[in-house]
Amino acid sequence: MDFTLEATDPTGARAGRLCLPHGEVLTPIFMPVGTQGAVKAMNTEDLPRIGAQIILGNAYHLYLRPGIDVIEKAGGLHRFMQWDRPILTDSGGFQIFSLAQFAKITEEGVEFQSHIDGSRHFMSPEKAMDVQRAIGADIMMCLDECTSYPVTHETAAKSMQMTLRWAARCKRRWEETRDGRQALFGIVQGSTFEDLRRESADATVALGFPGYAIGGVSVGESKDDMLLAVDRVAPRLPADAPRYLMGVGAPDDLVEAIARGIDMCDCVRPTRNARNGSLFTSHGKVNIKNARYRDDFNELDPAMPTPVSRRYSPAYLHHLFKAGEILALQLNTLHNLFFMLELAANCRRAILEGRFAEFRRAFLAAYRGTPRPADEGESPEESATRVD
Amino acid sequence: MDFTLEATDPTGARAGRLCLPHGEVLTPIFMPVGTQGAVKAMNTEDLPRIGAQIILGNAYHLYLRPGIDVIEKAGGLHRFMQWDRPILTDSGGFQIFSLAQFAKITEEGVEFQSHIDGSRHFMSPEKAMDVQRAIGADIMMCLDECTSYPVTHETAAKSMQMTLRWAARCKRRWEETRDGRQALFGIVQGSTFEDLRRESADATVALGFPGYAIGGVSVGESKDDMLLAVDRVAPRLPADAPRYLMGVGAPDDLVEAIARGIDMCDCVRPTRNARNGSLFTSHGKVNIKNARYRDDFNELDPAMPTPVSRRYSPAYLHHLFKAGEILALQLNTLHNLFFMLELAANCRRAILEGRFAEFRRAFLAAYRGTPRPADEGESPEESATRVD
Repeated sequence: MDFTLEATDPTGARAGRLCLPHGEVLTPIFMPVGTQGAVKAMNTEDLPRIGAQIILGNAYHLYLRPGIDVIEKAGGLHRFMQWDRPILTDSGGFQIFSLAQFAKITEEGVEFQSHIDGSRHFMSPEKAMDVQRAIGADIMMCLDECTSYPVTHETAAKSMQMTLRWAARCKRRWEETRDGRQALFGIVQGSTFEDLRRESADATVALGFPGYAIGGVSVGESKDDMLLAVDRVAPRLPADAPRYLMGVGAPDDLVEAIARGIDMCDCVRPTRNARNGSLFTSHGKVNIKNARYRDDFNELDPAMPTPVSRRYSPAYLHHLFKAGEILALQLNTLHNLFFMLELAANCRRAILEGRFAEFRRAFLAAYRGTPRPADEGESPEESATRVD
Repeated sequence: MDFTLEATDPTGARAGRLCLPHGEVLTPIFMPVGTQGAVKAMNTEDLPRIGAQIILGNAYHLYLRPGIDVIEKAGGLHRFMQWDRPILTDSGGFQIFSLAQFAKITEEGVEFQSHIDGSRHFMSPEKAMDVQRAIGADIMMCLDECTSYPVTHETAAKSMQMTLRWAARCKRRWEETRDGRQALFGIVQGSTFEDLRRESADATVALGFPGYAIGGVSVGESKDDMLLAVDRVAPRLPADAPRYLMGVGAPDDLVEAIARGIDMCDCVRPTRNARNGSLFTSHGKVNIKNARYRDDFNELDPAMPTPVSRRYSPAYLHHLFKAGEILALQLNTLHNLFFMLELAANCRRAILEGRFAEFRRAFLAAYRGTPRPADEGESPEESATRVD
C-alpha cells in the first residue's frame, strides 16, 4: 500500500492517492458497503459506472456465511463476487457486539453465537487476521471492541485499553503472515472522552500501522460529538497515512469529516435510506413516498443530477416505491450511492483547486437549508449506521 | 402495425417480423412482463442488453396505480418508465377476475373493487380501450372474460359469447379512436372445449383484428390441455397475422408453442421463478437454494451460458439467495429472462435455417431429461402464470 498526499487545504481537508493491489483510490472517498459480498440492491457491474473505487466487506458476516472455506475455494472475495477493484474488510468486531445473539468478551477474544443459526464461535485478534487473510481484502482492520453509547468513562477506558492490546496482537499476526499485499489499519477508540481519544490515538500510532481508523462513532452520539471525536483524533494521526472514519455518514457528515482531514468514509446510510425511499439531493433528503411526488415530472435535483434523476421522474420513482417494485430499491440505491461518490469527488476537486472552504460552505448551506414542507414526515433513521 | 412472415417450418413454427411504432420485433419472441411499469427486479436499461424487444404492461394495474392521469401527464407509459421499444398491454380482464376483491360482471362490463385500497371501479370494453389509448401501448388487447379452470361447458360457452360481444365493442371503440399507431388484438377463449375454441376462433377472426391471442390458458389446466387448445385454435387463425399465446410459459412450453405456430408468448414464470431461486438451464430448472451449490464453482450451464452464469459461480448465487441479498433477485431474474429470450432467438434461427424440428427434439430431450437428484425438492409453482 502506498499513500501520497496531493494537497492539504487550510481547513485540514486532504486530497490523496492510495495505491492498493487492486487499483488506485483517489481520496477523499466514500466506500459503498458490501457487507455480505454484495452492495445491497446494486449490480456489482454498475458500481464502477457510478464511480465506486473501493468497497467494504465484513469479516464477521462472511465468516459465518458463506464461510471462509467457500471464499478460499473461490480464490478470495474479489473472485467470489467478481469485483476486481480494492476491498476493505471490517474485522466484524462491531457486528459481533451488535448482532450476535450472545457475546462474551475476555482478554483472549470474544465468544459469540451466530445471529443466523445460533452456532457458537470464537474470534480472537489472531483469528480476525487469519479470516481477513483468507478473504483477501486490500485493507484489513484490527479486531476492536466498539463500546455502545452512552458509556461510562471507566468502561470506555477498559475497553479502549483492551482494543490497544488486541491491536498489538493483530499487528503481530499480520507481520507473521505478511505477503506484502494486504495492509492493516489500527482503530482509535475512546468514545466521547477527550483523554481516552487522545490516549488511544497516541498509543495506536505508537504501534504503527499503514493507516488509521476512527471507530466508536456513529453509535448513537450526536453529530457534534461525532465531529468532536474526529477533531480530537485526526490531528494526532501521522499526516502521511490514510485516515478512515468508520460508519460515517450522511452527505453533510461526509463533507464535515473531509474538512477535518478524513480520507475515507463508509456508511450503510445511503443504501439503507434508499431502501426506505429517502433520496439524497443537494437540498437535503427527500421522501419519495410522499404524495407530493405522485405527479411530479420535474427533475428531482438539477443542481446535482444522478444517472437516476436525469432519466426518471420523481413521479415514476414514487410509483415504483408505492407499488413495492424491487426496481425502486435498485434505482434509489443507484441514486444515493452516486450522490455520495460524486460528493466525495467534488470535495476532492475543490481541495485540489484550493476552494474547499467555499465548496463546504455552499454545500452545507444548501443541504441544511429549510427542508421542503412536505418532506418533514420522513421516517426517523436509526443512528447506528455500521450495520447493513 | 405490419407483420411479415419470413419462414414457416413443416411443424408449423413461424419466423416473422412485426413492425410497430416503437420498433421492429423479430418473432417468435418471449415478452418479459412489466405489470406495473417495471419488469420485477430488472433495471430497464439492462433489458435491451439481454435481447428484450417488447415488454408487457398491465392496464388494470396501471389504471389503479399510478392512475391514468399520471401516465397521461408523463406522456404515456413509454416515457413514464423510460422504455422506448414496443409495449403490449394486457387489458386487465384476467387481473380483474383474479385479483380484484369483488367483481360483478354484466353485459355492460365489470364492476370491481381495487385489490389495493378497496375503491370501486367499473371497466367496460370501451373504457378498456380508452385506458390502453392513454397508456399508449403499441399493441392493445380486447377486454375478455377469462374463465377459471375447471369450468362447465355451459359457463364457458356463455363467457366466450360475451367475450365475443365485448370484442366487437372493443373493435368499434378502437376504430372510432384510431390513430394508426396502436394495434388491437382479439382474444380467443373457450377453455378446454373443442367446439367452443373453434367457435371463438372463427368468430374472432370474422370480427377482424391485426393480431390474435389465445387466452384462457395457463389457468390451472395440464400442459397437454394447454397445447391442445393451441392445436385447435392456431390453424384457424389467418397465417398473415401474429399469434400471441397469453401467459405461457416455461421454457419447454415456449418451444412447444412455437412449434404450433405461435409468434409471441409472455409469462411471469421466468421472473417469479427467479425470485424463488429457481434458475432455468438447458437441463431443466435448478434450485439454487440447494446445499449442493454451496461450494459449486463450475459453470452452471455451459450449454446455454447467460451473462450471469458466465460471470458468477453457482456458489455465489447460492450465497446471495441464502443471505437474502436483493442482488440474488436481480441476478436470477437477469439469468432467467436472458435464457427465455435466447431460447426464442435460437428457435427463430432454427426456423430460418430449416432445422427447427431437430432443434426442438434436442432441446426438449435435454430440458426434460432426468433432473439432477438434488434438485427434486423444488418448491411447487402456482399454475396460474398471468399474475405477476
